[in-house]
Amino acid sequence: MTVLVVGSIALDSVRTPHGECSEMLGGSATYFSLAAAHLSPVNIVAVIGEDFPEDYRKRLAARNINLDGLQIARGKTFRWAGTYAGSMNEASTLKTELNVFEGFDPVLPDHYRTIQWVFLGNIDPELQRKVMSQITGHRLIALDTMNFWITGHRESLLDTLKSVDLAIINETELKMLTGEHSIPKAAMAMTRLGPRTIVIKRGEYGCILFHEGSWFCVPAFPEPNVVDPTGAGDSFAGGFMGSLARSGSADYLSLKRAAVMGSVMASYNITSFGPWRLAELQPDDIARRFTDFRDLVTL
Amino acid sequence: MTVLVVGSIALDSVRTPHGECSEMLGGSATYFSLAAAHLSPVNIVAVIGEDFPEDYRKRLAARNINLDGLQIARGKTFRWAGTYAGSMNEASTLKTELNVFEGFDPVLPDHYRTIQWVFLGNIDPELQRKVMSQITGHRLIALDTMNFWITGHRESLLDTLKSVDLAIINETELKMLTGEHSIPKAAMAMTRLGPRTIVIKRGEYGCILFHEGSWFCVPAFPEPNVVDPTGAGDSFAGGFMGSLARSGSADYLSLKRAAVMGSVMASYNITSFGPWRLAELQPDDIARRFTDFRDLVTL
Repeated sequence: MTVLVVGSIALDSVRTPHGECSEMLGGSATYFSLAAAHLSPVNIVAVIGEDFPEDYRKRLAARNINLDGLQIARGKTFRWAGTYAGSMNEASTLKTELNVFEGFDPVLPDHYRTIQWVFLGNIDPELQRKVMSQITGHRLIALDTMNFWITGHRESLLDTLKSVDLAIINETELKMLTGEHSIPKAAMAMTRLGPRTIVIKRGEYGCILFHEGSWFCVPAFPEPNVVDPTGAGDSFAGGFMGSLARSGSADYLSLKRAAVMGSVMASYNITSFGPWRLAELQPDDIARRFTDFRDLVTL
Repeated sequence: MTVLVVGSIALDSVRTPHGECSEMLGGSATYFSLAAAHLSPVNIVAVIGEDFPEDYRKRLAARNINLDGLQIARGKTFRWAGTYAGSMNEASTLKTELNVFEGFDPVLPDHYRTIQWVFLGNIDPELQRKVMSQITGHRLIALDTMNFWITGHRESLLDTLKSVDLAIINETELKMLTGEHSIPKAAMAMTRLGPRTIVIKRGEYGCILFHEGSWFCVPAFPEPNVVDPTGAGDSFAGGFMGSLARSGSADYLSLKRAAVMGSVMASYNITSFGPWRLAELQPDDIARRFTDFRDLVTL
């Protein structure tokens, strides 16, 4: 089954202790799609500017990714620049140029409207609702968000949350949203805002799935060579949703397997600048790493 | 088989968002012993002052804990006071009064010298070596340490590390000791200092076992009611060593089971002030929580 993703496509300039890259293909929808496409077809809704490199568009189209929902707007593509230092757990943003992303108005092509597995990337909660209003039926709607919307557009975000099935959110933002210091309490509080299922991203500590009173934990892969964490959360979400769509089910076992698959994708993504390592994974790489994740916790 | 522990016995005064306690039985050897004693006999080497409450001594002796190595010195017992705020990941020390602990000279009673499973709690690395020099044979020597020794007595600590089999160390201190930001790199670097096996304590993120190139991760139990984290690391170490001694083996499976058992003990300990919840665990509590830990990660 197909996954629908709405999010950003960007040109990223990133510096880490291991090097740097400039005007690299990035954005939440990019990392999400390149991860999910290993598992199921992906349909993108996003916007790029007239300056978007044709090579990047081609490299997306060459995957299992439908670009009928990709708008080309007058102006420049969204650009982000950031650095990571020390343990690289958090990016310091150097520059955010929204450009065409500022006026993004997500419109779903007709053949996107019946897609069953929907991921609302980290965009204005009002736009997330606008996407939901165009969907004519779904199995599962998941959402990501960030501090900017939590603090500045809280009511709008709460309104969106009421209608989603699952939230993929990082630990700090979960605490910020719920006002709880304790992750278990925060996850329980979050389910009272709408989503039945919460997936908490914890960076180098892995992730936690909370579903109907049950907890499932996935450690991060002990990768000694983390080169660039950019896109880790989005490639996690892509692996997660791609896995669910492939299984055709959102039962607890499928959710657990999805959390591991998301972790597999993120673990590869962080070993290089940009999305190419992720994009070029082979089925064997994925299967082997999935087994490695099981071995990490098996007595 | 029996476990030998050398460490502190203290009177703790602790304040957390959930309340406070004053002159509570504490110290690394206390939490360690009360956890380990559920699994195997424990022999303590420690020092207390003349003011140490007789009730506390009796409550230790009532367990599977031999106190022949407990010295009673002229003066006052070691006292520590601290607070935890917010997510309670780290204590702020308000007061440290070493008292009799300052002149601690660990001497092993003769019948302690042949104990096979040895835990060197967080004391001066020179004293840790002094303990090792009194041991006449062992299966496994494990050590804990802290920032104070890493920064102020580095050469002495490195000297001690050469002779130990296993280090149980928290994440921040592992990074400090090795100078590595990446946990996988830091663990690998640590094995080059002596210990073959590294156990990394990560507080609310659980722990990682690194043994002969293999990684094993245990999440923290998603406990919503953390009341007082004091002693979590020591009860973890006690559960870990008690489990090894009970199994009579230090092979990889035994080490993995020990890491889970340590996590079981820590998960209960943090739900109350002081060590009593830990001390009063029943075999069923332990077995049930061990199963809960498996369920947390089982696909």
